[in-house]
Amino acid sequence: MTARAFLGMDVGGTTTAAGLVTATGRVVIARRRATRGPGDGDAVPRILALAAEVAGLARPRGYRVAGIGAGVPGIVDATGVIGGEAHNVPELGGVPLARLLTRALGVPAVVDNDVNALALGEWMWGAGRGARSLVLLALGTGVGGGIVLDGRLYRGAAGFGGELGHVPVKLDGRACVCGARGCLKAYVAGPDLAAEGSRRLGRPVDARELFRLAADGDATAAAVVDEALEALAAGLTIIVNGLNPERLLLAGGIARALAPRAAELRARLARRAYAGALATTRLRFLRLDKRTTVRGGAALARHAAIRRTRA
Amino acid sequence: MTARAFLGMDVGGTTTAAGLVTATGRVVIARRRATRGPGDGDAVPRILALAAEVAGLARPRGYRVAGIGAGVPGIVDATGVIGGEAHNVPELGGVPLARLLTRALGVPAVVDNDVNALALGEWMWGAGRGARSLVLLALGTGVGGGIVLDGRLYRGAAGFGGELGHVPVKLDGRACVCGARGCLKAYVAGPDLAAEGSRRLGRPVDARELFRLAADGDATAAAVVDEALEALAAGLTIIVNGLNPERLLLAGGIARALAPRAAELRARLARRAYAGALATTRLRFLRLDKRTTVRGGAALARHAAIRRTRA
Repeated sequence: MTARAFLGMDVGGTTTAAGLVTATGRVVIARRRATRGPGDGDAVPRILALAAEVAGLARPRGYRVAGIGAGVPGIVDATGVIGGEAHNVPELGGVPLARLLTRALGVPAVVDNDVNALALGEWMWGAGRGARSLVLLALGTGVGGGIVLDGRLYRGAAGFGGELGHVPVKLDGRACVCGARGCLKAYVAGPDLAAEGSRRLGRPVDARELFRLAADGDATAAAVVDEALEALAAGLTIIVNGLNPERLLLAGGIARALAPRAAELRARLARRAYAGALATTRLRFLRLDKRTTVRGGAALARHAAIRRTRA
Repeated sequence: MTARAFLGMDVGGTTTAAGLVTATGRVVIARRRATRGPGDGDAVPRILALAAEVAGLARPRGYRVAGIGAGVPGIVDATGVIGGEAHNVPELGGVPLARLLTRALGVPAVVDNDVNALALGEWMWGAGRGARSLVLLALGTGVGGGIVLDGRLYRGAAGFGGELGHVPVKLDGRACVCGARGCLKAYVAGPDLAAEGSRRLGRPVDARELFRLAADGDATAAAVVDEALEALAAGLTIIVNGLNPERLLLAGGIARALAPRAAELRARLARRAYAGALATTRLRFLRLDKRTTVRGGAALARHAAIRRTRA
């Protein structure tokens, strides 16, 4: 007698996590591997191999894999093909990963943007449980968002729904890698903080060092971090006033670095957002680990399985 | 033998429209009255009287009123009570208009934000028909938005969902009446355009004259209008990248005034938004009249009737 489990994956620029998750969200197994090997461009076979490896662990533990879900760093179209915007893992652009996973393992697979997966996982089993509407904003190497409304992932017309890193918060502001100006990402993503900090300090720093310098009282570093807080407050205002979700979750390394200043962030947000909207949108900082990201992929798989059953 | 019709209302700061709309969106009757009489504070009895007048015309024309829907200029909570933010008609703040209409006319009534009503009406019977996702942005005396997703009006936790006038597009920009800085409204709403134009021109102008001056080549007026176009492009980028709706509809007097420069607006938007998102979000300028606004209210009523039947 085997129980049903979902194989969840989180494909990152550096590492890929995969695990088995039960229908109640318990992570039974979680593994992590480098996304690429010593050579370049071999991410796809490595992802498939990791999926097969974890799937192979299911039966000995009394589970059968009912579906596979993978979050990937990019925009995914309705047919499960990853768009050319997957900057962190360029070789995934144009790859029909869902089809490849299904073919390799013989179970239905679904692929979506990694932050969409996280948002759905938190809604299904985590900090967003029970919410009718939820927005998750992930601040790390990039900035992305996931929107869950009425129990469904909101993807928009072509999968861009929730791309909240590239909303302008300062229309004449910093140039962004996307080609536009003043995007939220240009103020709060790790590489952007590092670049701005390095420029102003006159020597190369990474985001971690920038935060450390700011905490130690360096006025130049503190100014860059202050600008990040203010841009984030503006970005959150867009979400609070424009969508007024029941839950607003902040995740990722940069969110964690800003968490000690949560009270100040809330004060800045309160100066911008409607009091009535802010009072009803609960803001929370999330801590992500291998288990939560694996759960995101599994949530995609379970969500798809439920929808198949209903259809 | 009588056919079913919905009584749709649009309560504005100056005039209120009411009409009978069939289940297929045909406007059978439409009336318009001043929202207030010679005295102040009598909007509520006048709204109720107009509703009764139009309802009284139904039977002689072979219709029975199956429900009432009213769009009002403000945020409406889940129980149908209008919030204190109804700046244009302050005496509506705290008024349980839906309950009053139901009591007066003996049929179910639903009240929501006026732009939400418009968005639903366009989705049901107008320029948004068939779209799985739609955002309507109304630019006039105020700036508001309505979001329809998967055939349902998205209201958010407390009804603020779609308040897209108060999303910051320039975090250190112009002060907004809401108390925040750099809101889209501060750049594109009629009174804000008039105030900025008057300040820079050194004499009082209204928005209409500002647009005329800009078209006639006045450099100062043209600069204010250019800033409005750029802020609107940024605001639309928030919608296109963040939500990627299938349809994006622009309505209201200021949208109409900007319509001759639609090509330029699209070019500015193309410099900001993701190409893949923009290619799948269809942007359209709408022309509103008494019939379309009445249809919005009726759409609220029909939507509620359908949901009652399903529940």
